[in-house]
Amino acid sequence: MTTVRPESRLQQSLDDVTRVLDRHRVLETLTHRQEGPKRDLLESLQHRQNLVELHKRLRAMHPADVAFVLEALPPVDRQTVWDQIDADKAGLVFVEVSSAVRAWLVECTERDALVALLTTLDPEDLGYISEDVPPEVLEQASRTLESRDRQAFEATIQYDEGQIGHHMTHEWVAVPETHTIQQALADLRSRAELPPQTDRLFVVDARNVLRGSIPLQALLLADPSLPVLASVEADSTTFGAVDSVQQAASAFERYDLVSAAVLDARGKLVGRLTVDAVMDFVRAEADMRTLKQAGLTRDEDLFARPVDSALNRWPWLGINLVTAFLASRVIGQFEHTIRDLSALATLMPIVASIGGNTGNQTMAIMIRALAGDQVRGSGARRILSKELLVSLLNGSIWGVVVGIVAVALYANYALGAVMTGAVVLNLVVAAVAGVAIPFGLHSTGRDPAYGSSVLLTFITDAMGFFLFLGLASAFLQ
Amino acid sequence: MTTVRPESRLQQSLDDVTRVLDRHRVLETLTHRQEGPKRDLLESLQHRQNLVELHKRLRAMHPADVAFVLEALPPVDRQTVWDQIDADKAGLVFVEVSSAVRAWLVECTERDALVALLTTLDPEDLGYISEDVPPEVLEQASRTLESRDRQAFEATIQYDEGQIGHHMTHEWVAVPETHTIQQALADLRSRAELPPQTDRLFVVDARNVLRGSIPLQALLLADPSLPVLASVEADSTTFGAVDSVQQAASAFERYDLVSAAVLDARGKLVGRLTVDAVMDFVRAEADMRTLKQAGLTRDEDLFARPVDSALNRWPWLGINLVTAFLASRVIGQFEHTIRDLSALATLMPIVASIGGNTGNQTMAIMIRALAGDQVRGSGARRILSKELLVSLLNGSIWGVVVGIVAVALYANYALGAVMTGAVVLNLVVAAVAGVAIPFGLHSTGRDPAYGSSVLLTFITDAMGFFLFLGLASAFLQ
Repeated sequence: MTTVRPESRLQQSLDDVTRVLDRHRVLETLTHRQEGPKRDLLESLQHRQNLVELHKRLRAMHPADVAFVLEALPPVDRQTVWDQIDADKAGLVFVEVSSAVRAWLVECTERDALVALLTTLDPEDLGYISEDVPPEVLEQASRTLESRDRQAFEATIQYDEGQIGHHMTHEWVAVPETHTIQQALADLRSRAELPPQTDRLFVVDARNVLRGSIPLQALLLADPSLPVLASVEADSTTFGAVDSVQQAASAFERYDLVSAAVLDARGKLVGRLTVDAVMDFVRAEADMRTLKQAGLTRDEDLFARPVDSALNRWPWLGINLVTAFLASRVIGQFEHTIRDLSALATLMPIVASIGGNTGNQTMAIMIRALAGDQVRGSGARRILSKELLVSLLNGSIWGVVVGIVAVALYANYALGAVMTGAVVLNLVVAAVAGVAIPFGLHSTGRDPAYGSSVLLTFITDAMGFFLFLGLASAFLQ
Repeated sequence: MTTVRPESRLQQSLDDVTRVLDRHRVLETLTHRQEGPKRDLLESLQHRQNLVELHKRLRAMHPADVAFVLEALPPVDRQTVWDQIDADKAGLVFVEVSSAVRAWLVECTERDALVALLTTLDPEDLGYISEDVPPEVLEQASRTLESRDRQAFEATIQYDEGQIGHHMTHEWVAVPETHTIQQALADLRSRAELPPQTDRLFVVDARNVLRGSIPLQALLLADPSLPVLASVEADSTTFGAVDSVQQAASAFERYDLVSAAVLDARGKLVGRLTVDAVMDFVRAEADMRTLKQAGLTRDEDLFARPVDSALNRWPWLGINLVTAFLASRVIGQFEHTIRDLSALATLMPIVASIGGNTGNQTMAIMIRALAGDQVRGSGARRILSKELLVSLLNGSIWGVVVGIVAVALYANYALGAVMTGAVVLNLVVAAVAGVAIPFGLHSTGRDPAYGSSVLLTFITDAMGFFLFLGLASAFLQ
């Protein structure tokens, strides 16, 4: 047995592969520079040796580690590595990479090779990547599935990505309710291996309706002569196939589950949700939230082609441009005021910026509470009044500080007072917007984070300019 | 057996508790309004009945669900619920709530009750919450631990929160390498129950050095007469107690682990890391990242006292204020230019805003790549050159759009040209800053997300103002 420290192993893998690739690249450059038949032969021998070494190293690596290496490599190296992966491992690697890199692999793999690779996958994995491959390739690959697997595959793709049905496995161990522990154990022993993440057996009746589950541990400790129903867990968590994975993830976390039964509307066992699928979902969700909050429409390959990258960023860039123009029109209305006192132009971004900052703080707290389903009608009102108090408190302290600095800079007391007033009022605006925007997005069924930042900044900018310049034109003329 | 849909259960719990609380509150209001001894008696009877019902409902709930309800309730209701939780459940609930609510509970629970509650916890849980309770309370509670548990507790708190040692459990099943499968099974059966999330047994030699692990599944399927060493997994993942949990989390995700051995420097078995601890860590990490990115110094109770909330937001508010002032000083240098052409004041926030937006997009991608350890020296350079290309591409397209709008608004071609130039240059600045800031934070060992937004906005604001006003004063006079 060898025990392995995963991180050293992972970084080691990346280092190893990079080293071989570097040698490979140096060689290619040399070959380009110097011609001549004898040199050529030598080089090509060495060249082949390098590829053989690369192949050997990749063969020894876990598919998830190969996926990690692929994601971290720029396209030219990625191609070299991809070409050296064994056909039987390529499928698993294809499932493990990020969807952005998967799109890249689809593009640079020939259609027949792609189909061959997909046929090595089990039906759940095929369902998992179904949205990333061209429909005709998927169709061709799924035709090779045996009828039972084909059913599982079709069951998977009939649910959408947010539903448990899309993420459940169709492999589980079920025993009839009439069995004894002894019979259940004999049943298990007759199998070559159990499906991964099997921590419990499901007990079903003759119509496949779930009667309960027995943890493997309980099975090991139970009296073999007792019926299985006697060892069934008193209170076991189950899910519906159409329920949201998001909520299943919270349940796995709260109740420390490893696997759970998935039932159809009539209580029949149709699948099993495992902790690894849940963890993949949680991680992907967290990653996407960060990207979406920053205004990216979808996942992006680290080494994407610049044109693809640029396009991925257009929608939010465009929206931001429109909102920035709208906010600036507010300033446009006060150009005569600014002409009279150009200090206003200098100070106005401060009012806008401090509003954006505090609004984002409020919003972060709201988004987390909403994502956890912890805000009810009366709760939202309470949070709003708390946030209003906080903003008045912060506004009156920091507003005065800002006012004093303005007076120090421009020796103009009225200007200082206007500045203080504008900061207090804009913080109130920020508090209201910080609570209202995520709440509004959430109550229309959207992710409370999506696009919230752009919307908030628009409001705090526009109102910051309006409050400051409006107060100035009213009191400083 | 009852099978339970977790979400309906959870929302049901919250509804039930809220309903009882509402009744309780209405009653309190009535009691306040109307006096009189007879009314009083009746009310207090009903009052007591409500509390009894609340108590009954709470007793039937999972500790994690009670924690969820506590987090979602405003302080006055929270207190009522907390008072009705049984002493033996209160400890588990205390472990499950968020650290912000835990701080609230510490404040409103008497010291003796707090100590009593902590003595019901196992050593790992006590270690887990050790930083949230006053040291003297912790000391008092840990004194009641038996010597073995006390050792485990002390082992836990000697590691810091980022290390695996702080999150591992000290409960596992180990068998001597000299045992047969038969003996190992007998060993298991002699126990009343196995520790939670036991998916494998550890095989150790006489000096407690790990020789490998056997999945429970393999144990069930193996020939009972063989020695345990024959069934040991060929390639099992282990961790060091001082390794980072962050990296362990990636490994759990990549290799779909349920539990893994934790070893000391000499290869001795000192703990076991389980998937539930890893998942809690991943979730907490993702939550904290969102909060920290928005400029909150620590987790915040949804219903915190306004003063506490305000203070939590001060550090970043202060920093933001300073950077906003610094950026505005750039404008201050050009006040005479603005006096001549006040349209500049109107347009300059657009240049700053579009820079901030694209910079944040670049940064989101960098942060994710760095958090996943996928960026090496040459990778960073490649990403930078890609981002520069993207910014030039987006800049020349959107910059021209912006320029045309400016011409349309002010009928001034030179102004449009200056606007276009400033947007292109500021997008280049944003690309450089978006790659450099997280890379810089990461290479000094910090979280690449922490404070990155404030820093980026400062740079894109200041440079946006400088480029636009600088170009204007050079070319428009």
